[in-house]
Amino acid sequence: MKLANLVGDRFKERPADCVIDSHALSIRGGYIKYVANGIYSLLPPMKRVTAKIENIIREEMDRVDCQEVLFPVVLPGSLWEESGRFESVGEELLRFTDRNDTSMVLGMTHEEAAVQLVREYGQSYARYPFSIYQIQTKFRDEARPRAGLIRVREFTMKDAYSFHTSQEDLEEYYDRMAKAYDRIFARVGIPEVVSVKSDSGMIGGSVSHEYMLLADAGEDSIVLCDECGYSANMEAAETIADNAGASPMAELTKVHTPGCKTIEEVCAFLKSRVEESCKAVIYQQNVDDKYVVVYLRGDYEVNETKLTNYLGEKVHPATVTEECGLVAGYCGPVGQKADCIIIYDKSLEGIENLCCGANETDYHYTGANIKRDVGDVEYVDVSKIREGDICPSCGKKTIRISRGIEVGNIFQLGTKYSETMNMTYVDEDGNSHNPIMGCYGIGVGRLAASVLEVKHDDYGPIWPISIAPWQVHLCCMRSDNEDCRRIADGIYKELQDAGVEVIYDDRKASAGAMFADADLLGIPVRIIVGPKNAVNNEVELVTRDKSFSSKVSVDSILDETKKLMDTLWDEINSKVE
Amino acid sequence: MKLANLVGDRFKERPADCVIDSHALSIRGGYIKYVANGIYSLLPPMKRVTAKIENIIREEMDRVDCQEVLFPVVLPGSLWEESGRFESVGEELLRFTDRNDTSMVLGMTHEEAAVQLVREYGQSYARYPFSIYQIQTKFRDEARPRAGLIRVREFTMKDAYSFHTSQEDLEEYYDRMAKAYDRIFARVGIPEVVSVKSDSGMIGGSVSHEYMLLADAGEDSIVLCDECGYSANMEAAETIADNAGASPMAELTKVHTPGCKTIEEVCAFLKSRVEESCKAVIYQQNVDDKYVVVYLRGDYEVNETKLTNYLGEKVHPATVTEECGLVAGYCGPVGQKADCIIIYDKSLEGIENLCCGANETDYHYTGANIKRDVGDVEYVDVSKIREGDICPSCGKKTIRISRGIEVGNIFQLGTKYSETMNMTYVDEDGNSHNPIMGCYGIGVGRLAASVLEVKHDDYGPIWPISIAPWQVHLCCMRSDNEDCRRIADGIYKELQDAGVEVIYDDRKASAGAMFADADLLGIPVRIIVGPKNAVNNEVELVTRDKSFSSKVSVDSILDETKKLMDTLWDEINSKVE
Repeated sequence: MKLANLVGDRFKERPADCVIDSHALSIRGGYIKYVANGIYSLLPPMKRVTAKIENIIREEMDRVDCQEVLFPVVLPGSLWEESGRFESVGEELLRFTDRNDTSMVLGMTHEEAAVQLVREYGQSYARYPFSIYQIQTKFRDEARPRAGLIRVREFTMKDAYSFHTSQEDLEEYYDRMAKAYDRIFARVGIPEVVSVKSDSGMIGGSVSHEYMLLADAGEDSIVLCDECGYSANMEAAETIADNAGASPMAELTKVHTPGCKTIEEVCAFLKSRVEESCKAVIYQQNVDDKYVVVYLRGDYEVNETKLTNYLGEKVHPATVTEECGLVAGYCGPVGQKADCIIIYDKSLEGIENLCCGANETDYHYTGANIKRDVGDVEYVDVSKIREGDICPSCGKKTIRISRGIEVGNIFQLGTKYSETMNMTYVDEDGNSHNPIMGCYGIGVGRLAASVLEVKHDDYGPIWPISIAPWQVHLCCMRSDNEDCRRIADGIYKELQDAGVEVIYDDRKASAGAMFADADLLGIPVRIIVGPKNAVNNEVELVTRDKSFSSKVSVDSILDETKKLMDTLWDEINSKVE
Repeated sequence: MKLANLVGDRFKERPADCVIDSHALSIRGGYIKYVANGIYSLLPPMKRVTAKIENIIREEMDRVDCQEVLFPVVLPGSLWEESGRFESVGEELLRFTDRNDTSMVLGMTHEEAAVQLVREYGQSYARYPFSIYQIQTKFRDEARPRAGLIRVREFTMKDAYSFHTSQEDLEEYYDRMAKAYDRIFARVGIPEVVSVKSDSGMIGGSVSHEYMLLADAGEDSIVLCDECGYSANMEAAETIADNAGASPMAELTKVHTPGCKTIEEVCAFLKSRVEESCKAVIYQQNVDDKYVVVYLRGDYEVNETKLTNYLGEKVHPATVTEECGLVAGYCGPVGQKADCIIIYDKSLEGIENLCCGANETDYHYTGANIKRDVGDVEYVDVSKIREGDICPSCGKKTIRISRGIEVGNIFQLGTKYSETMNMTYVDEDGNSHNPIMGCYGIGVGRLAASVLEVKHDDYGPIWPISIAPWQVHLCCMRSDNEDCRRIADGIYKELQDAGVEVIYDDRKASAGAMFADADLLGIPVRIIVGPKNAVNNEVELVTRDKSFSSKVSVDSILDETKKLMDTLWDEINSKVE
C-alpha cells in the first residue's frame, strides 16, 4: 500500500508519559492509540504485526495437535463460582450484572470455560489426551497498567488447555508445548527467551514455567546461572546461604545495645559480622491478623511470595502493638514468648554463633545458638536469592539476577479445575477419575511490544522480517522527478506482482521526513530510489538495521530484494529448532 | 486431521429448545456449545468456518482500501457520553464500573471508538477519504437472544468506518462497499442475498441498506417486487393504498352501532366495505404519555417504527382513561375534541365516503369526508405495507413479503458522530468542517449460521467449499480391513501433501455412524474407502449434496478430487462479480 494512505500519525517527540522505549515507539510510530487506562486501539501497522504473530502461534499450536476454539469474553459468574475463583480472585476479575441482574465476569483466563466446553466430550478415557486453544480478547482489571502494551487491562491472548489421564501424559505434552513455545519465540525473532521455573500463583498447580525475555525494562526479576543454565523466577529459586566458615559456638551473652534498632546498627556497634546475625521481620496474616515472625540471616530479605506460599495465607507488614508481646527492633528467637507463628529461614541453618534481639528494649544477645538455646526447629526457604549466591543447580556461587518481561507461561494444573468443576472420565475398568490439566498462555500484544523493546534503535523499531508489518519499504525520494517516479512505480508493481508485502512512500516529502517515517515503521528491507542513482538506472537496497547497503541495478532489484529477504528469513529460521 | 481426535460431540436427537434448523444442527454437529443466555463457545469446526469467513471479509475489505485496526471491547463510558449514546441507548448497552469506579461499557458498535482513533489523523483534508475496519468481539445485552448464533448477546463482527469530505465521495465509497458486500456473500456461498433499503434506527444517518438472506426462519420481513426488483424493509417501504374506484361523497350520518367495537364488526353490521372505513389506533408517547391517535384505513395496520420515526419519540399502546376525552372503540376524526396528537395515514387519502367512529359510545358515522368534515389535513405514511400492495417503485400491485435474516448492513451516517464528538478537518481554504461518515457491519457468527440455515438437508449442513471446515471427508469404512486401511492411509497422505484440507475418519465405527457424522460435518467432497471397491483398487467419490457420485481408481483419486473441488469452486466463483 501507499504510505500516504496509511492511517495513523508518526512524530518525532517522545511522549512525556512513556517510561520504556517500546511504549514510546508504539505511540510515535502510529502503532497504538490510548483509549483509557490500560486500554488501547491498534492502528494498522500494529494490527499487521499481531496478525503475523497470531498466525505463527496458530501454526505451532497446530503442530502440537492443539485445536482452535473460541470461548466467550463475557462469562457467567456461576461458572467461576463452580471453580471457587469467583470468590478467591481479587479485584482484577471484573464482575458486573447484566440487564436481568445475572452475575457476569469478563474472562481474564479461561480454565472454567475450557472445562465447561469439554466436560461432556471428555467423559471417556478413549478421548484423551486432547488440547484446545483460543486467541481472544481478555480483560484483567489491573491496578497499575503501565508501559503501553506490556501491562494492559484489555489484551489479546492465546490460551491453550490440555487434558490428560495421567501425570506422565501431561508431562510429555507439557514438554511438547514447551518446544512449541521455543519455536514461537524464535520465529517472532526473539530466540533468546529463557524458560524459568516459576511459582504458579493464582492459576494453581505445581510445576510451571515462565518464558522470559531479558530486558532492562522488564518488571520481573529472573535468577540465572551462566555456569549451568539454571533459571527460575525469584519465587521459585531456592536461596542457599553460604554459612561455611562461620564462627564456633560461644556463650549466650545479653549485651546492652542502646539505640541500635536495625541489625546493621547492632553489628556495627558490636563489631560483629552481619552474616552471623539473626534478624526478625514481622508480618500479620490477612485472614486473622495473627503475627508471623520470620527469623533470617541479617543480610537477607524476606521473599513474601515464598512466605505466602508456605503459610497458605496472604500477609501484610505487622503493626506491632504493646499488647502483642513482641518488642519491635529487639525481637529474637531466644526467650521469645509472644503468641505468634515463628518461621526460621534456611539462611540461618548452620550458624553456631548468632547475634540477635533479646526481646527487651536496647538489649541483644551474642553467642546465641538456635539448637542449644531454642531447640530443634524446622528451617524453610522464605528469603530472596541474591546476585552471587550459590546456584541451587550446580552449587557454584554464580547466581545472576536480571530483569525480564514475561512473554508466555505454561502450567501443570493437575486436577484443581476438573475436581472443583466435577469433570470426570471413566477409565477402561469403569472407574471414574478427574482428568489432569495443563494450561499454556501467550499475550499477543505484549509479545509484539516485547520484541519491539529489544529490537529497536533510537529512531524506531527494527522488526524481524517474520512479524514486520510489511517486508519492504520503498522510498521514492523525488516523486516529482520523472526518472525516480517511473523507476519507483515500476518496482512497486514488480514487488507486488511477486507477492512481496511492500509499503510505498511516494509522497512529496523531504528526505529527512521520509527516512524518519521509514525508521518508525521499521521495515527490515528498504529500497531507496533517488535522482542521482536513477540516472544510472540504479537504486539503493539497505536493511533497517544498517548492517547491509548496496547499489543495485533496477533490472535485478526483484532478485536482489528476494535474496536479501531470504538472508533475513534464514537468520530467523536458523534459530528455530 | 483425524476425526477420532476432533473435539466435540455429534448426536442424532434434535435438541428440544432449538426452533430453527441451523441452531439444531450447530448443536447436533458439535459446532457450538451453550455457555449462558445468548453466549456460546465455538468448537473447532465452527471456528474453522468463521476463520474462513473472516479471511474472505479481510480480502474484500483490502480490495476497497479499508485498513484493519482493532478497537477495545471495553470502552470508557465517557466516550459514549461524547456522542450522547451513553444516555440514548437502552439496556442493550452493558454499562458497568471498573475497580476505580470509572464508568465503562462493552462495545456493541464502535462509531465512537473509530472517531476517537482518527480524530487527530483526520485533521487535514489531504488525508481523506480513508476507511478502517476491525473484526472483533461485541456484546449487546439483547432482551431475547434466540436461534443459536442468529441472535446472540456476544458475537464477532466486522465493522468498518469510512470518512469523507463530501456526500458525493461518501456515496461513491458506499457503492464500492456495497459491491464488496455482494462479493462477500457470493464468496461464502449465498449470492442470493438481497440488499434492501432500511430504516437506520439507533445508528443514525439517512440512507442505509440491510443485506437480507431470504429464509423462513428469519425474524425480519422484507418487501420485494419481483416485477421491478424493488426491495426494502418494512419500515422503509412506502405503503400506497389503492383507493381508486371508491364511493362518491355522501351525507354525514350518525348511526347506532350497538356493541360494534372493531372496525370489522362495524362494517359487517353496516354492510359497508372495510376499505372505505377509518379506524383509530391510540398510542401514548413514552416521554410524556401524551396521546397519539392514528387514523388509517380499516384494513391496514400501523407500522410502529414508521410512527416512531415520524414523531421522533417512542410510543406504547395507550391506556385510554375516562378523563382523556377519547372514547375507546368509537374514536373518529369528526368532532374529536381530546387533547392529543392526531395523525392521518396516507391510506385514507382519496377516500370520499368513510365509515368512522363518532366519538360517542355505540355510535359511528357513515358518509364522513375528511376534507369536508374536518378540514385540510396532512397525510403521512405510518401503515404496514401488505402482500399484493402497490410497488412504490414500479406502481404495479406486485408487492411480496418474505422472511429474511439480516446478514449485513451499510449506513450513510453523515456528520452525526463527527459533530457530537467534535472531529473536524481543515479544507484547502483553511475552513473547518465535520467529516461525513459511513459505517458497514457484518456479523461473522450470524453469517455462518445463516449459510447453514439455507444450506442443509435433514442430516446436516451442506457447507459451500469456500467456508467448509474441511474440503474433503475421507471415510475408511473398515479400518480393520488391510486393503481399506492401506488405501485410505495412502489417500490421506496424498491429499495432505497436496495441501487439501482433509478430515480422516478411520474409527472402528458402523457405516451408519460414520455417514451420520460425515453428514453433520457437511464437508462438500467425500471419499469412501470400502472393502468391495478396495478389491478393485477403487473408491467412491461423492459430494455432500448427493448430486455427484462416481467410482474412481485409487491411482487417479487426487486428480479426480481436485477436479471435483474445482467444479465446486467454479460454482461459487461464477456468482462473484
